[in-house]
Amino acid sequence: MVEKRTPLAVAEAVKKVVEQAVPSGAETVNLEESYGRILAEPIVASSDVPPFDRSPYDGFAIRSIDSEGASGDNRIAFKVIDHIGAGEVSVKKLEAFEAIRIMTGAQLPKGADAVVMFEQTKEVEDGITIRKPFLPLENVSLQGEDLQKDEIVIDSGSFINPGTVALLATFGYSQVLVAKKPVVGILSTGTELLSVEDDLVPGKIRNSNGPMIVAQLKRMGLTCEMYGMSVDNLDESYRVVKKAAEETDCLITTGGVSVGDFDFLPAIYEKLGAQVLFNKVAMRPGSVTTVAVANGRYLFGLSGNPSACFTGFELFVRPALLNMMGAQKLYMPHTTATLGEDFTKANPFTRFVRAIYDGQMVSPAGFNKSNAVSSIARGNALIVLPGGSRGYEAGDTVDVLLLGSEEGAARWQL
Amino acid sequence: MVEKRTPLAVAEAVKKVVEQAVPSGAETVNLEESYGRILAEPIVASSDVPPFDRSPYDGFAIRSIDSEGASGDNRIAFKVIDHIGAGEVSVKKLEAFEAIRIMTGAQLPKGADAVVMFEQTKEVEDGITIRKPFLPLENVSLQGEDLQKDEIVIDSGSFINPGTVALLATFGYSQVLVAKKPVVGILSTGTELLSVEDDLVPGKIRNSNGPMIVAQLKRMGLTCEMYGMSVDNLDESYRVVKKAAEETDCLITTGGVSVGDFDFLPAIYEKLGAQVLFNKVAMRPGSVTTVAVANGRYLFGLSGNPSACFTGFELFVRPALLNMMGAQKLYMPHTTATLGEDFTKANPFTRFVRAIYDGQMVSPAGFNKSNAVSSIARGNALIVLPGGSRGYEAGDTVDVLLLGSEEGAARWQL
Repeated sequence: MVEKRTPLAVAEAVKKVVEQAVPSGAETVNLEESYGRILAEPIVASSDVPPFDRSPYDGFAIRSIDSEGASGDNRIAFKVIDHIGAGEVSVKKLEAFEAIRIMTGAQLPKGADAVVMFEQTKEVEDGITIRKPFLPLENVSLQGEDLQKDEIVIDSGSFINPGTVALLATFGYSQVLVAKKPVVGILSTGTELLSVEDDLVPGKIRNSNGPMIVAQLKRMGLTCEMYGMSVDNLDESYRVVKKAAEETDCLITTGGVSVGDFDFLPAIYEKLGAQVLFNKVAMRPGSVTTVAVANGRYLFGLSGNPSACFTGFELFVRPALLNMMGAQKLYMPHTTATLGEDFTKANPFTRFVRAIYDGQMVSPAGFNKSNAVSSIARGNALIVLPGGSRGYEAGDTVDVLLLGSEEGAARWQL
Repeated sequence: MVEKRTPLAVAEAVKKVVEQAVPSGAETVNLEESYGRILAEPIVASSDVPPFDRSPYDGFAIRSIDSEGASGDNRIAFKVIDHIGAGEVSVKKLEAFEAIRIMTGAQLPKGADAVVMFEQTKEVEDGITIRKPFLPLENVSLQGEDLQKDEIVIDSGSFINPGTVALLATFGYSQVLVAKKPVVGILSTGTELLSVEDDLVPGKIRNSNGPMIVAQLKRMGLTCEMYGMSVDNLDESYRVVKKAAEETDCLITTGGVSVGDFDFLPAIYEKLGAQVLFNKVAMRPGSVTTVAVANGRYLFGLSGNPSACFTGFELFVRPALLNMMGAQKLYMPHTTATLGEDFTKANPFTRFVRAIYDGQMVSPAGFNKSNAVSSIARGNALIVLPGGSRGYEAGDTVDVLLLGSEEGAARWQL
């Protein structure tokens, strides 16, 4: 008798999984190590940016009032009394019709309130002349115009991108508090599996899911423990899963979650006393995706079919791990695009089609079955076709989730 | 007298830079290390995928011909003569009205040409009955339906994503030929620069460009050598640049490329005998971006202004490094989006505005000046506004380049 499973809607399944996240905690890393991590503290401006009024150009600092009435017929002359390179501060204070030669980024001297660019001046014996009037603060970068001291600039839970690193450097964060990386384990189940090094033998295939998930984790900046490949034997499998579940925050298994005679994971979850969040999702591929939690640890039972395994990781494992790290943006970025070719298969369940998205059009990335491998490599997106439809035609607008984006979206939009 | 520079159009500048790439060569890495690298060989299918006809479901293998005429009123009985788990091969051959219990992924037994799912059967004493006819090849995954032996599956020059890793594993590539990583150096110039650890003092700011570029390289999977922060002194700077240029394939300097009194890079390039590809680009920010080559090595002179520096890296350095690695997709992914707010500044030059893109709308990521830092951290895209326009209004469709995408686009589309 085959067990009857009730499929859960994808959005609900995602929500159920994400809610179970136990925070991974925080640790301090050097600024150089911070790219790609999740901030575990807000970035607070330790100073104004810029920290002082400064010149955005190479030129001459003047008092704008002295430039009043300047024109081509009435050039106004300024005596140049000092020369400031970036990083230097002039001790002089500008008086009437005086100018100070100033370089980009240098602090405006006292008395000055405008900067004349080199190309707006003509050099004369002991100074310059100009042919147009300048307004107060013209060509001045004002202290605090970008950011103000004590302002919260970036929230905790943000992904640290190169710009974030620049901000951290600006404010003197040589050390940064970031989320700890969850400890993730991978266990591939299935007696049909060979190692990458093995020669093919009848009836067997090489394990591609294990290395693929390692790469999916690496794409998130995470590493993992490998628990090898388990045989399809209940006792042995139970022993390995139990050990792995104790040693990790998140154990990802592939295979063994369907209704086959050697699909032991349902029995193992029961024996572990794990709470099964769901064991069937209304999606293709990956409808057998099973997620359980035991002692605050995730147990992801992904399908053994590569495309289903891949999709299950991106839809469920990724946001769960990000939520453990306190990230604000858990989900794949969503957009819409024009379907490049007909997709006529009816969809009783929501379908996630591995696809190539070029910024306007999106087309299936080739052979579309849950056991396909080629389309995972060729695709950079998933087309999402809602369940209950009869198929789609080229030219239809469809939902698209983008793969391989550094940072995701804050909301699940489908 | 200020040197007169002729601005080059962005597309032309990008082309000029990319053309100068000298191949970085290839090296062999273990499969586990291959994610994020650029393939330096095509992936060739060493076998069909699947390698044999197999069952995509848990169920029973039958001869479809025996199911002819089956219905609810006329259930047809099959005798179950064997049981195949995944990875196993049955030695039996199906004869009339025989079935073999078969698990997902297992090789179809001889004589069988269809699979009946568990839920489509009723168990009886020594077998099963079914209530519908099956077509030849119904519920069978055919050998080679995904990929065929000797087929070139992925071209050389492709980015190795998690799906590529799965493919490599499938075909037994325990070692992969990938492009060598170019040796990159960073040199920050400017006497106004402090280290991240330093306290602010009047007239000075902390060096944010150096750490930012390290992160931009890390985002590409690349590391770099740091050549510290140079003082604004010609001889000393020349010595450091010369050494760095000899030790690296690509030296990135920040600052020192404008027309200021301490902007020594133009003089240094000349002294090095470097060929200056351009020293002015018709873009904001970053119009002073200068790119030179000497002895087949890149010398990137990026602006010292953070936003200009960031943009210069993404527009020029990134595709140049990718081209050195033989990558097929050199450029930031392009899309279009609806502008979320007015942008009324006139654009004599093409403007790259750091922006937040949510899949539909795009809006400037805050303070927009070339010396801004905050907008780099907050943005995930660049709005591209062509030169010569008078400004744009909310609701206009604008060009967008996406930041932080794993793989780029093959063509420069702007």
